[in-house]
Amino acid sequence: MILVNGTAATSVTADDRGLAYGDGAFRTLAVHGGRLLAWRRQFDKLASDLRALHIPCPQEPLLREEVAEVARGQPECAVKIIVTRGSGRRGYAHPSQVAPHRIVSSSMLPQYPAAWVNDGVTVRACALRLAWQPALAGIKHLNRLENVLARAEWNDAEIAEGLLQDCSGNVISGTMTNIFMTDGAELVTPDLSGCGVAGVTRDRVMEGARRNGVNCRVRCVSLDELTSAREVMLVNSLIGAWQVRRFGAATWGPGTLTERVRRWLDESDD
Amino acid sequence: MILVNGTAATSVTADDRGLAYGDGAFRTLAVHGGRLLAWRRQFDKLASDLRALHIPCPQEPLLREEVAEVARGQPECAVKIIVTRGSGRRGYAHPSQVAPHRIVSSSMLPQYPAAWVNDGVTVRACALRLAWQPALAGIKHLNRLENVLARAEWNDAEIAEGLLQDCSGNVISGTMTNIFMTDGAELVTPDLSGCGVAGVTRDRVMEGARRNGVNCRVRCVSLDELTSAREVMLVNSLIGAWQVRRFGAATWGPGTLTERVRRWLDESDD
Repeated sequence: MILVNGTAATSVTADDRGLAYGDGAFRTLAVHGGRLLAWRRQFDKLASDLRALHIPCPQEPLLREEVAEVARGQPECAVKIIVTRGSGRRGYAHPSQVAPHRIVSSSMLPQYPAAWVNDGVTVRACALRLAWQPALAGIKHLNRLENVLARAEWNDAEIAEGLLQDCSGNVISGTMTNIFMTDGAELVTPDLSGCGVAGVTRDRVMEGARRNGVNCRVRCVSLDELTSAREVMLVNSLIGAWQVRRFGAATWGPGTLTERVRRWLDESDD
Repeated sequence: MILVNGTAATSVTADDRGLAYGDGAFRTLAVHGGRLLAWRRQFDKLASDLRALHIPCPQEPLLREEVAEVARGQPECAVKIIVTRGSGRRGYAHPSQVAPHRIVSSSMLPQYPAAWVNDGVTVRACALRLAWQPALAGIKHLNRLENVLARAEWNDAEIAEGLLQDCSGNVISGTMTNIFMTDGAELVTPDLSGCGVAGVTRDRVMEGARRNGVNCRVRCVSLDELTSAREVMLVNSLIGAWQVRRFGAATWGPGTLTERVRRWLDESDD
């Protein structure tokens, strides 16, 4: 089901600036057992991303109601919220009156092999390097051609995710996930001040670490460092956490981090 | 008027990947005196940009007919063509079957002050720096948030354009224009291998220079160099060419380049 500005619809106006320029932001949320996970954090992140783009954010109760409506009768689903700068005439300048558009939709949760959840995943390195753009870094905006190009690099159903580096070779993220690694003592996650999306699940993992007395550092991470980590993990709102078990020649045995992180996420899912 | 996949419409499907990810490319064309300018070059550039994104390009006769239809009865107008990867489910992976969407629309030509055309324009430097992304450089794709952010930096109706630099300080382009400068002997235009849009009018100016025995070099250009050039000029398909007369503390008297370039463009407008 799709709600466009609150009304059931299958289309958006052709002059939407989201279509013209990618001028907007989005979120993807999980509904499990009829419960919408981490809504407040998801909304806060959307509001923060829209603020960075100078797009007025829809009111929280309005969006929450629309999310509930598209998810009704679907206890297990994914909900996507797109907010754009609304309609505009040709040209990059903001419209004189901005009336943001809301496109809220639900879909089936992606079906991943049980082994990816239970045992972990195989990942590859993408050739595409993420551009360094601090003005947009961290924001889940609608300019996602880099992710599209990177995801098109492989077609092997055994590969769960592609790892992305910036032009200096720092590991930034997966195409659709954030990354954590550990040496057994502390957690490390890549610095996203130059590129990448700072996801809500990444924030929740960092918060879980704090709550559980585990140090988590945000810093530059090289591919070599990742390869020699004791454990590597991918996270996002739909998958929760996957352990990385194979990356090129590197393999990892079953670890304990992913289960711990899943517990942290379960503790703070509202 | 808007044609969506050949049918008069005002909306596009909400699952369009152009909206979801900016997954597509576009062109803006001028119609003057009922004539569509530089169609073949515009089509070739669209085809080349779509090829770079691995999006199948619509057939030329089909697009040409749609452009003619939206421009009918409007001897002076702007035509915009958007081609996206079409509908897709959630997720960055290409749809298994790609059926690109065509959104072809016409609008009034932008009304700029006559003085901008006759005497030249005032420009400013944007604070936003363009990201270096060779995988997307030159392509007029739908990921245009950088242009949107840059254009939002000023609201002074006297300022015609904002100049954009890359993160190394090289001048790349205006927010909606390409740049040429001259020392009186040869032309120079910024190298766009790392960022920027390599526009059709830029190509036509370079071709006009060749045809008329003027050397044109494509290379890195600093802001200081631009400021000390004998003449500076902005070009795109809708404005043709504007001379830059003021940029910060730098001013230029009336030059001869813009008129010469307009003649070159008139010689090759089909």
